[in-house]
Amino acid sequence: MNYPNGKRSTKQSHAPKGKIKPDFSNRGMSLEEDINVTNQYYLEAGIAVVHKKPTPVQIVNVDYPKRSAAVIKEAYFKQASTTDFNGVYRGKYIDFEAKETKNKTSFPLSNVHQHQIDHMKAIEKHGGISFLILCFSPLEEVYLLPSSGLFLYWDDQWNGGRKSIPYAFVEKEGIQIPFHFQARVDYATALDKLYF
Amino acid sequence: MNYPNGKRSTKQSHAPKGKIKPDFSNRGMSLEEDINVTNQYYLEAGIAVVHKKPTPVQIVNVDYPKRSAAVIKEAYFKQASTTDFNGVYRGKYIDFEAKETKNKTSFPLSNVHQHQIDHMKAIEKHGGISFLILCFSPLEEVYLLPSSGLFLYWDDQWNGGRKSIPYAFVEKEGIQIPFHFQARVDYATALDKLYF
Repeated sequence: MNYPNGKRSTKQSHAPKGKIKPDFSNRGMSLEEDINVTNQYYLEAGIAVVHKKPTPVQIVNVDYPKRSAAVIKEAYFKQASTTDFNGVYRGKYIDFEAKETKNKTSFPLSNVHQHQIDHMKAIEKHGGISFLILCFSPLEEVYLLPSSGLFLYWDDQWNGGRKSIPYAFVEKEGIQIPFHFQARVDYATALDKLYF
Repeated sequence: MNYPNGKRSTKQSHAPKGKIKPDFSNRGMSLEEDINVTNQYYLEAGIAVVHKKPTPVQIVNVDYPKRSAAVIKEAYFKQASTTDFNGVYRGKYIDFEAKETKNKTSFPLSNVHQHQIDHMKAIEKHGGISFLILCFSPLEEVYLLPSSGLFLYWDDQWNGGRKSIPYAFVEKEGIQIPFHFQARVDYATALDKLYF
């Protein structure tokens, strides 16, 4: 599926009737912003409750001026110990990380960290649903890849395996997520196909 | 259950054998810290995966000095749109807020905000488990109260009802959480009694 004229094909769209037309006004939005918009839509439409976790920050110094809000004067970014998004969908715990790559042929594993893998494995062990949302930006294609597919390549890289997940694997084992007007990254529909 | 000598009774403890003795060295810890310690223990023992969400912060100005970490120079606290803790336990999505009160006879509803209630109701609607962990600090008693009990008093307060949840109600409808050495706030055991 290519977009030679810069427009998305709606051929494979799973958008509900009357909502086929994609919104081109905000195409500059990041994957994360698109997911936030999707989550807001899911919440309002009663589809799922999923939130992005706030960026973890180590606060060192706070100023409390009279008659106005506290100002954080010194703080540092901390490494997150989990993935970025989690919540509940159809009674199930879901947990995912969203990643973009400028690569067309593979997703480099350097985009993921060991502590995220540990977290995702723990989630799966406890009966949650863990996955990646992968965006191949040059192709304008977004996929949901179950974390089991990620683990396969992640673990294999230490045994002399490749350092990336081939695009062909993602296309075969993942579910493509079409762009919708409201559910810009409609991962819930992809989850339906895989898990429900 | 009173602690006239400043020590906790271990009579009703559900601690595993050999782990009966509470650790008095960190009695100054807050409820939140005790829950964080518990979550770490649950994670390592393979019992549950639950994390506290980072405090949401609106970052306004960041300095990127050469050869050292980025410093946040101006930021503001934002109101959280969800509860503080969520995760997966025995395949279920769980979601809770932890609150302390210095009150002995009731838990004031002013400790909870409407957006948290909205969030908790959404969680329940989607099949998640939502609850409060309430600490009556003068009594040194901690309870797990299912959010349905909170909703009862929350909704009733707008119809001329009282502005607090009586201690007697929490004691009757909630599950008391004894203090353990590792699982300081052993809410998983309380969940077992209520939901599994």
